[in-house]
Amino acid sequence: MSKEIKKPGNFTVHATDGNARRGTLVTAHGDIQTPVYMPVGTQGAVKAVSPRDLREIGSQIILGNTYHLYLRPGDELIARRGGLHKFANWDRPILTDSGGFQVFSLESIRKITEQGVEFRSYIDGSKHFFSPEKVISIQNNIGSDIMMVLDECVGYGNDRDYTAKSLELTTRWARRCREAYPAGSGDQLMFGIIQGGFHKDLREVSLEQLSEIPFEGYAIGGLSVGEPIPDMYDILQHIGPKLPFEKPRYLMGVGTPLDILEGIANGVDMFDCVLPTRNARNGTLYTSLGKVNIKRAQYREDDSPLDPNCDCYTCRNFSKSYLRHLYTAKELLSSQLNSIHNLRFFLKLTEQAREAIENGTFADLRKKYEAVYEAVTR
Amino acid sequence: MSKEIKKPGNFTVHATDGNARRGTLVTAHGDIQTPVYMPVGTQGAVKAVSPRDLREIGSQIILGNTYHLYLRPGDELIARRGGLHKFANWDRPILTDSGGFQVFSLESIRKITEQGVEFRSYIDGSKHFFSPEKVISIQNNIGSDIMMVLDECVGYGNDRDYTAKSLELTTRWARRCREAYPAGSGDQLMFGIIQGGFHKDLREVSLEQLSEIPFEGYAIGGLSVGEPIPDMYDILQHIGPKLPFEKPRYLMGVGTPLDILEGIANGVDMFDCVLPTRNARNGTLYTSLGKVNIKRAQYREDDSPLDPNCDCYTCRNFSKSYLRHLYTAKELLSSQLNSIHNLRFFLKLTEQAREAIENGTFADLRKKYEAVYEAVTR
Repeated sequence: MSKEIKKPGNFTVHATDGNARRGTLVTAHGDIQTPVYMPVGTQGAVKAVSPRDLREIGSQIILGNTYHLYLRPGDELIARRGGLHKFANWDRPILTDSGGFQVFSLESIRKITEQGVEFRSYIDGSKHFFSPEKVISIQNNIGSDIMMVLDECVGYGNDRDYTAKSLELTTRWARRCREAYPAGSGDQLMFGIIQGGFHKDLREVSLEQLSEIPFEGYAIGGLSVGEPIPDMYDILQHIGPKLPFEKPRYLMGVGTPLDILEGIANGVDMFDCVLPTRNARNGTLYTSLGKVNIKRAQYREDDSPLDPNCDCYTCRNFSKSYLRHLYTAKELLSSQLNSIHNLRFFLKLTEQAREAIENGTFADLRKKYEAVYEAVTR
Repeated sequence: MSKEIKKPGNFTVHATDGNARRGTLVTAHGDIQTPVYMPVGTQGAVKAVSPRDLREIGSQIILGNTYHLYLRPGDELIARRGGLHKFANWDRPILTDSGGFQVFSLESIRKITEQGVEFRSYIDGSKHFFSPEKVISIQNNIGSDIMMVLDECVGYGNDRDYTAKSLELTTRWARRCREAYPAGSGDQLMFGIIQGGFHKDLREVSLEQLSEIPFEGYAIGGLSVGEPIPDMYDILQHIGPKLPFEKPRYLMGVGTPLDILEGIANGVDMFDCVLPTRNARNGTLYTSLGKVNIKRAQYREDDSPLDPNCDCYTCRNFSKSYLRHLYTAKELLSSQLNSIHNLRFFLKLTEQAREAIENGTFADLRKKYEAVYEAVTR
């Protein structure tokens, strides 16, 4: 491969199948094969899973959160440690969410101005201010491979006028983010975030405005914020395929296995979601045969593995009966084993999607998952 | 080696250094090199540590608890799974405590008769009855390599008369346990438990009575029950070296690193204690340089490993600064990494003791640990 191809930010689409794409994104900490699911390590650690286990199950990249890491342990402390990769002992790529979603979704008192957003810490109630420049500076300190711009994440049910004004603010903030760290000024990439709520025309306006700013990738924000699934899919189907073809596309905070497949079908390359780890801790497990609620009495004496088609440590070594016991007995090992499995399930889903796109069989893969998950309560 | 040596229950003392012994105990699931520290897996899982990690840090044997496993998930359920080894995916030896200590120390309503002890479940308050025969039957179902007899564990501060009568009951119960599973009737071993409180002469009476019953090993019970350390050491020094030389000796539920070294110095071969895992979850970590309270602000920016002399996953890969962050942020990974380290510290302590006894340098080893731990609050 030429040197050009290995430059952070380079993105190659190797194959397509309908709107679905099979690509490679180059980052300073290695290549990412897409479509990709990214485990969430909000506070600089994926809950209950060690970096060693994350590698073993095939995690290519993990997320960190600007909002949380800024508040604790502090981005400057992380910078003094040599960055988040070194601090958390993770030498593969890291993406940091900008904190916009957290500031706007958490129950913190907040005040939005043109300049930025004032909010209170969820830890001690102290006052803080995020400007576009500030969140980029924080992400510089963290040293993530992919930085996200500061955006206003508009919740479901906001009116058209508010949403239209808000997306313009998001565009102005996006421009300031890019100006704070111009394209090519370092090894870190920056993605813009398309807003516009549940109005297709506003989504197009946001996309058009952001496309003029030279980001290394584009994200769809403001979905999975409490809306009915059809509304989410409607926006996804409308805007997904319209995003710049030659750049990686990231659907933020989505979703279930079927949501991810819907995203891939509409041209999305990157996904993150806390469902696998959160559900793991609640005993809800994803398998190739459907969802398993490990608490249920039916598993009390079930000697079979959680998922006969899974290659993870949990499925290779423990029975449903034992996993049920660990959950019931509130053993910490329960969260660990369940999280390893659920993450592996999501990682394997995108592995299979990559293979299917290469083979032109993505529709078959979707049907396979739909047959198992369609009927399941989301 | 001859076949005889490989028979479960066979115990060989290879070397001595003062009263300290370096031995090998044969069990159906492999040999145990003594002195040995045994991680505690009360409910069939060592808290926050996977079997894979337990193997990696050199755990030769783990504990399970008869009382807890009988109540949940139930010993018959475990038997139907093929025993605890298979259920918990642990193919090395397992020792099960009889539940005597739990029945007598937990705040359950209990009634002792000659026949046994009635108690209430800590889970749902339901009534249960343990007889000597019953606890052996439970341990048969669990399939542990080493079973413990049912004993009455007399707390600190009970009077001489009560203690004297109690040890006689413990002896009668011990005899009934052995009769329920005569020596050599299977691959499981059975250890008697010496009681007698803090009266040296009563300890001798208990030892004399139990020595007449052919157990494969002898344990010292009723220590570390709230007494001042000098009282514990007084009994340990008096009775430890008097236990049958040719059988393995087990000091139950003890203790700190210095307690374990004191035990070894007085001829004890086996130890279990929840301190390493419990303290790990509370952020108190044992290192070759002394105790570390990882919460402390002094570690906020400390890039050094927790213990520069430790070879565990935690110490090889993470800084004190990161461990402090995980603890402060209440990340589940904190318990996992801390537990791996603390267990490794205790396992290494007994590894070093084995080597020192072989080399006749056990006194030097003790001095090394005393220099670091003597001044530390216990």
